[in-house]
Amino acid sequence: MKYASFSVHGRDTYGIIDGDQVVDLGARLGAEYPTLKALCAAGLPPEAARAAEGQADHALSDITFLPPIADPTHIWCLALNYVEHHNEVQSAGRVQELPKQPALFARVSDSLAAHGQPLRHPGVSEQFDFEGELVVVIGKPGYRVKAENAFDHVAGYTIMNEGSVRDWQFHTRQITPGKNFYQSGAIGPWIVPRDEVGDVESLRIQTRLNGQLMQDDTVASMVHKIPRFIEYVSSIAPLCPGDILATGTPSGVGFSRKPPVFMKPGDACEITIDRIGTLRNRVTE
Amino acid sequence: MKYASFSVHGRDTYGIIDGDQVVDLGARLGAEYPTLKALCAAGLPPEAARAAEGQADHALSDITFLPPIADPTHIWCLALNYVEHHNEVQSAGRVQELPKQPALFARVSDSLAAHGQPLRHPGVSEQFDFEGELVVVIGKPGYRVKAENAFDHVAGYTIMNEGSVRDWQFHTRQITPGKNFYQSGAIGPWIVPRDEVGDVESLRIQTRLNGQLMQDDTVASMVHKIPRFIEYVSSIAPLCPGDILATGTPSGVGFSRKPPVFMKPGDACEITIDRIGTLRNRVTE
Repeated sequence: MKYASFSVHGRDTYGIIDGDQVVDLGARLGAEYPTLKALCAAGLPPEAARAAEGQADHALSDITFLPPIADPTHIWCLALNYVEHHNEVQSAGRVQELPKQPALFARVSDSLAAHGQPLRHPGVSEQFDFEGELVVVIGKPGYRVKAENAFDHVAGYTIMNEGSVRDWQFHTRQITPGKNFYQSGAIGPWIVPRDEVGDVESLRIQTRLNGQLMQDDTVASMVHKIPRFIEYVSSIAPLCPGDILATGTPSGVGFSRKPPVFMKPGDACEITIDRIGTLRNRVTE
Repeated sequence: MKYASFSVHGRDTYGIIDGDQVVDLGARLGAEYPTLKALCAAGLPPEAARAAEGQADHALSDITFLPPIADPTHIWCLALNYVEHHNEVQSAGRVQELPKQPALFARVSDSLAAHGQPLRHPGVSEQFDFEGELVVVIGKPGYRVKAENAFDHVAGYTIMNEGSVRDWQFHTRQITPGKNFYQSGAIGPWIVPRDEVGDVESLRIQTRLNGQLMQDDTVASMVHKIPRFIEYVSSIAPLCPGDILATGTPSGVGFSRKPPVFMKPGDACEITIDRIGTLRNRVTE
């Protein structure tokens, strides 16, 4: 099941995407679950799926995707969380040893566009780079969660293009500036429930720029696994329903290529993760 | 004029603090300006001050302070932004040269308590440190703002205790984890309009821990001045009304003292800035 937030006929709502048909859950369940965040807080419950058994409300071509969660309390991201990606960044002279702890930073909501919406070129820099990432979406709240219980707090998964402006990322040791340009990244298109995704280790992440394969690895290559990420971050701040945890990017990013490859206006970037889908955006000025 | 958000008789509102009296602007102007953020967006306009000329609505002892802005779109902070603080951190072996660009990171809203509310000890660490800081509160929206126009976007100023968990701050190069523990910092008590504060360079910042003076410097010692901070950050993300810009802390923090001084449950931490006020919190488990 693919749970998406979207705008249709000028109204923001959410629902289930089934091929080229869309069931409007906001219209059907809105009194109880006003947003997809609220539905995540309830664990994407079966009655939502049952509501999808009726007739579709919209054609896919009528909707405009929104970020699945409009206003996450937290958007936590990890740097250097795939072995080969760490190696390529190290080769570029940018880091030292593999981080013993999760290298955590935060993104702000308005740094992320929705599926199908423009990725905005930063303008002040030419070093606009892609990063395909698996995203955990939190359902059940928690604080100081143990790794062995961590998956209980996961509602489902989505995809992020954790778009990065490399020279601004390296202005100081803090990578935050290059990671937060307005709509420089994207999230979506939808959330697939945890149980439908199953074992994440085998998931393959592929990023294509203008059709060319740039990143290709599996979640098994993560340095700090999802349960450890959840344990670490929930020692700092409570897990809130709808929280976004971006789990790091595999190798193959543009800036460590020889010669470097950066995104320009007109480019199309696609990130595909098995059993989740494809997040597709085009770069604009 | 001191504009605060607060809770009174179970209702969240905002108003003007005048000695031990409180004017409830939410009750008087709420239809037009439902929150203090909305009033900042309007530039803290004179009719708000005029509303304060009538009789007070509450006694100061009846209200519970809330963070002045409940839900800022962005909370941007600067590390290493006072010369002597940079020197003390460098002496502790934690940094190299003075940052040529603002060393930007983000805090999440729930990392900040209100004036008078508990600062929560992180529990997982003993290295809980204070950082007194001047905070810029954005009024007028903007994007890619030039330094020479930056103050036009400032509604007013408040105070932050940018509470930091030092060992978690140094887990990797990214200081974000140590800067975002749940209610490890505080903000408030109120916003004083830009024109009433006047020239910020002369403002003195003093931090006292259990009455003992720990930090004492003036804004003139900032490395990257407020106009440069606003220019830098607005190149990345739009300035939104109610955005919080924490401008860095002076020297005298606990971890670079010999021996180090850290905050423990029961400690009282006070930060005073000229022409703004005093932010006071007590540490709890």
